[in-house]
Amino acid sequence: MIYTVITGASSGIGYETALAFAARGKNLIISARRKEKLEELKKEIQRVNPAAEVIIQTSDLSVSKNSYALYDSLKNYEIETWINNAGFGNFASIGEQNLDKIEQLLHLNIESLTILTSLFVRDYADKEGTQLINVSSGGGYTIVADAVTYCASKFYVSSFTEGLSHELKAKGLPMQAKVLAPAATETEFVNRSMEVDEFQYNSLPKFHTAKEMAGFMLELYDSEKTVGIVDGQTYEFHLKDPIFPHVSR
Amino acid sequence: MIYTVITGASSGIGYETALAFAARGKNLIISARRKEKLEELKKEIQRVNPAAEVIIQTSDLSVSKNSYALYDSLKNYEIETWINNAGFGNFASIGEQNLDKIEQLLHLNIESLTILTSLFVRDYADKEGTQLINVSSGGGYTIVADAVTYCASKFYVSSFTEGLSHELKAKGLPMQAKVLAPAATETEFVNRSMEVDEFQYNSLPKFHTAKEMAGFMLELYDSEKTVGIVDGQTYEFHLKDPIFPHVSR
Repeated sequence: MIYTVITGASSGIGYETALAFAARGKNLIISARRKEKLEELKKEIQRVNPAAEVIIQTSDLSVSKNSYALYDSLKNYEIETWINNAGFGNFASIGEQNLDKIEQLLHLNIESLTILTSLFVRDYADKEGTQLINVSSGGGYTIVADAVTYCASKFYVSSFTEGLSHELKAKGLPMQAKVLAPAATETEFVNRSMEVDEFQYNSLPKFHTAKEMAGFMLELYDSEKTVGIVDGQTYEFHLKDPIFPHVSR
Repeated sequence: MIYTVITGASSGIGYETALAFAARGKNLIISARRKEKLEELKKEIQRVNPAAEVIIQTSDLSVSKNSYALYDSLKNYEIETWINNAGFGNFASIGEQNLDKIEQLLHLNIESLTILTSLFVRDYADKEGTQLINVSSGGGYTIVADAVTYCASKFYVSSFTEGLSHELKAKGLPMQAKVLAPAATETEFVNRSMEVDEFQYNSLPKFHTAKEMAGFMLELYDSEKTVGIVDGQTYEFHLKDPIFPHVSR
């Protein structure tokens, strides 16, 4: 039995990506903080694909040591694809931002993602057919005003993952590392980031639904390209080679 | 009495920058882990400028909560310039890197820098003549093979600081935020990063001394530009406008 792991699977892009991989016949390990949401998703997955094995593993990855516990808890499963999707945003100026929230953001978006990526690469980089997909953001390639710290965390994710992709290729290892960079997506993510109950989507130029983004995730998964990015102007999805400059020493 | 704060002042670029600001007649608050190195620097500063006030504040910023303690300890001093210079590197592949060291790197290079920047901006952004300078790296604009996680941490620093510079200008606030991006520099930094006693500098194409980099730091301090970057090919120093794309929502 081989599994696809998805963190932050309780809602939004993670939730829809789990359904999309299940429809492909993949078994799933789904992780998030909220057990009841994962139970709901498990039922939904088994409606889509009654044969799919679904493992639920709750974890709060905004506490970075929990990422080791999550990884260790999966030691007995064989993993094909690992998707670091858990993350949250923050809209505030640097002088006004809540530093407790920012520390959680850094632990989740950067530190846990780095630990989980490193552990997965350590164990699986030499296995044919494996993939590591990190969910960044359009804000991980273009700084967005009033979301600077969030964007910087996603610049980290983009450059870290592009660098990993170069590294695996340079070593001739079969694992593929990829970055998904969505633009505004209709998910709970925006609600939590804005700390409001209802976000006025029509105040944004356009957005994708989480289901559309899960479709782009599959396009990226199926391709040989490293980056799947939504154009912030046209909202078109593009598969690309690594975007940042890279040198060997 | 007005002060310039420099973290990571016990050696390398931080040490030489302290001397360079002292020669300009600035009073200094110098921070690092090692008290005896700071005492040494204090004597050196007072040789350069006997009138300079020098405050020593030891702190290990690889434990991020220490950054709050450091900032609080300086509440009674008026600060003109804050230079986040403390940081360390790591040369290893992602699959082989030591995760304890990587967590320390993320806490120092990203988390403490973010907390100290945010607190300084909160208190001083509206004060004429103030500056915040974050030390990034050429690796914060170009990913370097075998130093991917370090580079990603510096992509964070570069994008965070450029974003802050845009933000301060958009709000019409007088504080200037700037990024210094050195290439290879002859400092203890490389020793600690490589975990060897002696680094063969002649194996690198070229390098600057820490004293040269302190000169570039002053050029950046004196300019209206946001980025001071050493070209990784020619080793020339260039003052530039922000490099990454930026949009207002």
